[in-house]
Amino acid sequence: MNEASEEHAHRSSRVHIWVPFYDADPMGVVHHANYLRYFENARIEWFRRRGITQATMNGPDLQLAVVESQVWYRSAARFDDNLLIEVRLHEMKHISMEFAYRAVVKGDASTNGAEPRLVADGRTVHACVGKSLRLKKIPPEMREKLMSCGEVNEASDTKAVEAP
Amino acid sequence: MNEASEEHAHRSSRVHIWVPFYDADPMGVVHHANYLRYFENARIEWFRRRGITQATMNGPDLQLAVVESQVWYRSAARFDDNLLIEVRLHEMKHISMEFAYRAVVKGDASTNGAEPRLVADGRTVHACVGKSLRLKKIPPEMREKLMSCGEVNEASDTKAVEAP
Amino acid sequence: MNEASEEHAHRSSRVHIWVPFYDADPMGVVHHANYLRYFENARIEWFRRRGITQATMNGPDLQLAVVESQVWYRSAARFDDNLLIEVRLHEMKHISMEFAYRAVVKGDASTNGAEPRLVADGRTVHACVGKSLRLKKIPPEMREKLMSCGEVNEASDTKAVEAP
Amino acid sequence: MNEASEEHAHRSSRVHIWVPFYDADPMGVVHHANYLRYFENARIEWFRRRGITQATMNGPDLQLAVVESQVWYRSAARFDDNLLIEVRLHEMKHISMEFAYRAVVKGDASTNGAEPRLVADGRTVHACVGKSLRLKKIPPEMREKLMSCGEVNEASDTKAVEAP
Repeated sequence: MNEASEEHAHRSSRVHIWVPFYDADPMGVVHHANYLRYFENARIEWFRRRGITQATMNGPDLQLAVVESQVWYRSAARFDDNLLIEVRLHEMKHISMEFAYRAVVKGDASTNGAEPRLVADGRTVHACVGKSLRLKKIPPEMREKLMSCGEVNEASDTKAVEAP
Repeated sequence: MNEASEEHAHRSSRVHIWVPFYDADPMGVVHHANYLRYFENARIEWFRRRGITQATMNGPDLQLAVVESQVWYRSAARFDDNLLIEVRLHEMKHISMEFAYRAVVKGDASTNGAEPRLVADGRTVHACVGKSLRLKKIPPEMREKLMSCGEVNEASDTKAVEAP
Repeated sequence: MNEASEEHAHRSSRVHIWVPFYDADPMGVVHHANYLRYFENARIEWFRRRGITQATMNGPDLQLAVVESQVWYRSAARFDDNLLIEVRLHEMKHISMEFAYRAVVKGDASTNGAEPRLVADGRTVHACVGKSLRLKKIPPEMREKLMSCGEVNEASDTKAVEAP
Repeated sequence: MNEASEEHAHRSSRVHIWVPFYDADPMGVVHHANYLRYFENARIEWFRRRGITQATMNGPDLQLAVVESQVWYRSAARFDDNLLIEVRLHEMKHISMEFAYRAVVKGDASTNGAEPRLVADGRTVHACVGKSLRLKKIPPEMREKLMSCGEVNEASDTKAVEAP
């Protein structure tokens, strides 16, 4: 969390999650598939804070389809852990964008009041599509809303679109 | 399963489920919310075998909304258990119907080749609704398909509809 | 919520849940199995506020096993709805206890600033068991903690234990 | 699936999954987090067929912890689709191994009896750990069982272990 510059603060969001009992598996730890759900909750909150909801995207007939996900599992989270999920827009291309995530446990015995413990980090790539699921350019108004929230890398997504 | 008369066989369906790892909780047993999911899988299979799918219900603008569920948890199922879910139509009223379920584990150490062990049983009540979620009478054609599969109790659903 | 007398306030807990995207099904509404999960989250919070966690129950070798659940689905909740889950201890017997729940949506268009809209209510019954899953009497210390939080019906659970 | 050589057949497993209703989201498609669950089901089946279960790993105090996952979402799967999940051991290192997956829909309208349609593919990396979650070398007996099933790339996992 030490990279939290002013720009960073503007383009990231954080949500807290108390790990529910049913998200932990017989090994007692959060099942790995759940992190994609936690990441999504944080990402939706990120959009909400920037005024972008499903309703606002219905007008221009837009959806953001997940085309790739990647997660690194660094340590175990358990039932009742207080997870902090941090999300930030990492890169925006013509028709796709990439988000980066960090999930940390704070304030449990293992952290001893020191630094939060990293549990997982990851990334997801989202392509802009219409109802027909055909790729669309990210509309200028949406791009503006997304970019207004601090410095974001801009790049071409030619390869990204071909790959998935 | 000893009640399996000829009529019973006609109006019940069975599905097998290998308990997935992620459905077991830190106590090592299937989390109780999952039985409603297993029951649904069996119920959808029951409808499929009688020629009723979401597609066939789209024409007459029909949906079956769950209005009540009840489950009794009798013993524990664990990861990798082979669950047999049995579903049967228990009662049909004018605008609602009730299904009954039994989930048993067969062939594990605890059964010793003897009778399957009862894990959970339950019931769900479903009301017939249109797109607007307003209650509708079960259409005659659908009623016929459902009743063609053996003896089912018919009853008035006045109270059931008032209650939920 | 108008029954919130002083005693009621003492023996009930409330948690808020933003309905996650992945909890809504293709009909756009919260899948019915999820309410048992929401109820559990509220119940665990209820115990936590009374100083009872899994850790405190490990000493006397105690677990609370769900033996029955029942839910009435009154109206639909959707993605992004702000659900308020209220839980209260309804009845305590010698070896089992029953909780009652209400899930309401507040502040959406359908409520118009008026009363919250009831989405689902239900009940769960929990039996006290040891590691071996054998029934145990609720220990006096635990009973005291639970009863200290307001008026609760006391009753014999003979039938309840036989039934499940 | 045309790459199914003899070796390939030996080191891959396939499982079928009827997409359950509750795995589809309000957009009508399988929520992306579920593919990690489907992949796990296939992987567990892969181990089972090679005589490796949780029980057989308890003796030598072994667990396989997921340390990384990556999924590419190629097209949409829907409720009731018949998914075929193929898994194969892609690489084995000293203390970790990597599996590769493909999820295809077969026999739906979009495939027209032609080739199955690719829905998602991905990879997961698993490290061998003891109860204390400390990294351990994959034991020779286990390695033998895993390698007996056809040609697998062997490689050093130094970097992989550092990275996660």
